[in-house]
Amino acid sequence: MLPPPSSPHRAQIEHLVRRALYERLGRTPPRVALAPNPLLVNVSARHCHLTPQAVETLFGKGRTLTPMKWLYQKGQYAAQESVTLIGPRSRVISNLRILGPCRDLNQVELALTDAIALGFDVPIRMSGSIAGTPGCMLMGPNGFLEMKEGVIRAAPHVHMSPDDTAFYDVKAGDFMKLRIGGPCAMTFDRMLVRVHADFRLEVHIDTDEGNACALQSDTPAELLK
Amino acid sequence: MLPPPSSPHRAQIEHLVRRALYERLGRTPPRVALAPNPLLVNVSARHCHLTPQAVETLFGKGRTLTPMKWLYQKGQYAAQESVTLIGPRSRVISNLRILGPCRDLNQVELALTDAIALGFDVPIRMSGSIAGTPGCMLMGPNGFLEMKEGVIRAAPHVHMSPDDTAFYDVKAGDFMKLRIGGPCAMTFDRMLVRVHADFRLEVHIDTDEGNACALQSDTPAELLK
Repeated sequence: MLPPPSSPHRAQIEHLVRRALYERLGRTPPRVALAPNPLLVNVSARHCHLTPQAVETLFGKGRTLTPMKWLYQKGQYAAQESVTLIGPRSRVISNLRILGPCRDLNQVELALTDAIALGFDVPIRMSGSIAGTPGCMLMGPNGFLEMKEGVIRAAPHVHMSPDDTAFYDVKAGDFMKLRIGGPCAMTFDRMLVRVHADFRLEVHIDTDEGNACALQSDTPAELLK
Repeated sequence: MLPPPSSPHRAQIEHLVRRALYERLGRTPPRVALAPNPLLVNVSARHCHLTPQAVETLFGKGRTLTPMKWLYQKGQYAAQESVTLIGPRSRVISNLRILGPCRDLNQVELALTDAIALGFDVPIRMSGSIAGTPGCMLMGPNGFLEMKEGVIRAAPHVHMSPDDTAFYDVKAGDFMKLRIGGPCAMTFDRMLVRVHADFRLEVHIDTDEGNACALQSDTPAELLK
């Protein structure tokens, strides 16, 4: 299934309008208007990534994920399928969304508030770096999946293409600052830079981080080296 | 009931040791070591404040609050008593802690994650400023209390004495920055300054804010104008 043509995000329209206005007015644009791409800041609610084998274990032989909502990163989607997460104190989170497509590892990403509620002592990790992290049990309609490890709090990060890294003068693995405006203005000092030719410029923070800064779609946001 | 003599907080000991070390070594102390008081950053989990009448409605005629744990601000405590909060979608939070002593208004303070889970559209307010805020229902062993208003997300704030405001050169109602170190380093740009002669220097942030910056007892914190 291919993603449908999506309507542009507010940040993309703002970026175009900002550029056009400065040009029309003949004024020197601020640095943000010169960036090759608009900056999106999106909140990732708790979710998991699964292998094709894990999907079959949980949902049944031959079952695959079905896209429900396309995300901003190319080809990434929230699946119709969700699972129940069972924590170390037998507390559960129902309807833990699966993000597709499948990956080559199983990983659960929780905000610290979620983790504390369930009794996980989660480390802050970059996605994919799960050695030594806590495990958990997932439950689907077809059965249980025991994960020996893979429960993390994802480090806040920014997806960048090489165009973006050139503009911001950073490289993969660097940390940048993200300045958020509005009534709960704050600056995140450690946004991990992740780089891929296919990445669209997008910050991912979790629900604790998004709620702490009261992020809305019109909240001002700026990336700083 | 009078508060028992409490053992000093880690931040108080650090402050004393820092001063002594710089003096012993004959080196110029950094500005933070010159502050009249140590800085404590504490996370306030969701809680409520009640009037004496509300306590009687919820717990029974003649009932008063019983201190369970003394807080850092003089005379303030977490009570043994707690209530059940019922939100607009009939979802509940059990064991919502009451903070004492009683006040002259009823107020529920939630983190945004709590508020979203229950279905409240909470505004960010300074404690006590509850006009036009959502109401809720509280349930105690003796009955229900309908609050017409009073559910807020407390603005992050710092309690200061006049000694502190003189040192930091701020006044009541100003906003300061709070810089937090560690693996989730961030800077809060809008810490509301609250001043009273009896206040001990202490920042109050909620669980979303505390979890977003992964606050621990040894996390570095600094107040900046």
